[in-house]
Amino acid sequence: MRCVGIDLGGTAIKAGAVSSDGRILDRRSAATGLERGERHVLDTIAALARELGVEGGLGLGVPGLIDRERGCITECPNLKAMERVPLRDELARRLGLDLARVLLENDANAAAAGEHWLGTGRGERDLLFVTLGTGVGGGLILDGRLYAGPGGLAGEIGHVVVEPGGPVCGCGSRGCVEMFASATAATRRARELGLPREKPGDLAQLARIAREREGAERELLHAVGRDLGRALATVVSLLDVRTFVLGGGFGAATDLLTPGVLAGIRERSYGERLATVRVLPAVLGADAGWIGAARPLAP
Amino acid sequence: MRCVGIDLGGTAIKAGAVSSDGRILDRRSAATGLERGERHVLDTIAALARELGVEGGLGLGVPGLIDRERGCITECPNLKAMERVPLRDELARRLGLDLARVLLENDANAAAAGEHWLGTGRGERDLLFVTLGTGVGGGLILDGRLYAGPGGLAGEIGHVVVEPGGPVCGCGSRGCVEMFASATAATRRARELGLPREKPGDLAQLARIAREREGAERELLHAVGRDLGRALATVVSLLDVRTFVLGGGFGAATDLLTPGVLAGIRERSYGERLATVRVLPAVLGADAGWIGAARPLAP
Repeated sequence: MRCVGIDLGGTAIKAGAVSSDGRILDRRSAATGLERGERHVLDTIAALARELGVEGGLGLGVPGLIDRERGCITECPNLKAMERVPLRDELARRLGLDLARVLLENDANAAAAGEHWLGTGRGERDLLFVTLGTGVGGGLILDGRLYAGPGGLAGEIGHVVVEPGGPVCGCGSRGCVEMFASATAATRRARELGLPREKPGDLAQLARIAREREGAERELLHAVGRDLGRALATVVSLLDVRTFVLGGGFGAATDLLTPGVLAGIRERSYGERLATVRVLPAVLGADAGWIGAARPLAP
Repeated sequence: MRCVGIDLGGTAIKAGAVSSDGRILDRRSAATGLERGERHVLDTIAALARELGVEGGLGLGVPGLIDRERGCITECPNLKAMERVPLRDELARRLGLDLARVLLENDANAAAAGEHWLGTGRGERDLLFVTLGTGVGGGLILDGRLYAGPGGLAGEIGHVVVEPGGPVCGCGSRGCVEMFASATAATRRARELGLPREKPGDLAQLARIAREREGAERELLHAVGRDLGRALATVVSLLDVRTFVLGGGFGAATDLLTPGVLAGIRERSYGERLATVRVLPAVLGADAGWIGAARPLAP
């Protein structure tokens, strides 16, 4: 069977087809074109799905909060125009699919499912996939299955508090890990330190220098990693999960973040199991989302 | 079918039989008698199981760390003599049961399963059961099933750090919630404040006074609840779980702890879902452990 998945983002729609046994068959992408209205977005998704030979069902990864019963996005700053649009029903109608076979999932959860199916997490029973981008997001695989939680918000590690009384986060709490370890936060921290000297705040260059030599760049990435590890320690203590897969743009620095992450985990968790904690880079990149969205369609 | 469960503790063994559809059929208990050696303990468990009409399988809740493959306790300060004793194999032999039908579970996980099957958590999809006793323990029900994690340690909320740099915990970290919100910690905090005036450190009397009138006793229980809530906030953020069941001896003060717990959760988590968070007292008391241990035997 061809399983077709769609990753709906604010600027681009990524899509592809994968066989039930996990071979990638085809990939497509298109501009989201939000400015042309919801109908245009729905038509674009439907056209991509048709080009990919959709049959029997469609998986859709979307940012923000989902209403699973109604099959729509309820809240998403980057896709305001799509909030409350009946995505599931409209796509089922356009593509002649059964309502129950158009499946919506949060995009970070979908990416976690993708990495678990065909990427770094293959064969793992339990893992947390972490996206390091504008914010810090995530998705949980427990007992070999995606655990989305009652409202689809499980795995959202970004708002675990690591420094009570720390800076106020957009969510209203103080000292969330997102304030210390997202790509945005790392950029800010680098700029505050004037790193790297030539282009303060440039994470790619920061990582390149940190890989080449000891010094302030490497130390900063260690500190950022440690803050992330302090949040992941909670996952070790609470869920006994020991495998962490880092994705998102800043996930490319996983090798440099890992020593700090492990230090942060050791600092705030305990037990012999700490020896079995692993921090691994995601490998599917921008494909993770659509692959994971298609995952539940495979038998 | 009669499902027989055993709750093995350091001083007492509690046991019972429950029908597959959840009617309690019988209850027994006996002294553990650790001082008389491992064989005596095994014989006592087998005798209780026989009296309860064991058939087809036996569930066993035990404190500490379990090796599921070998069917034994690997680490338990309160049952040192039973560490590495082949519990599963010895009980299967004594009772003529299949090895695969003698099921070991951590006692806090078993109690969580018990409360979920026949107690406060009945019908809930997701919940965290928290025991407030010498320490703070717990068990997680996710997607309607016990989630024990790869090493059986999931749900152990006690070592989630709520005050980085706080007092050193037995686990080696600093500021674990167990240092602030266990029955032991509450007793210590009460004694430090000279509360209640007549019997400093007496939690039953403290709760009685706090129920009767405003004042220092009620404020202390609010503060203890808030520290617990700060750890539970992590569970809301990370797992999207909103139902908390408080058990263990100090769980009897759930009504008094709840306002503080909710304040602590609000302080460190976010979103509209906070309106749906519930804190409920466990109802099965000492039966929760053996009932939950028997749970997986019911079809």
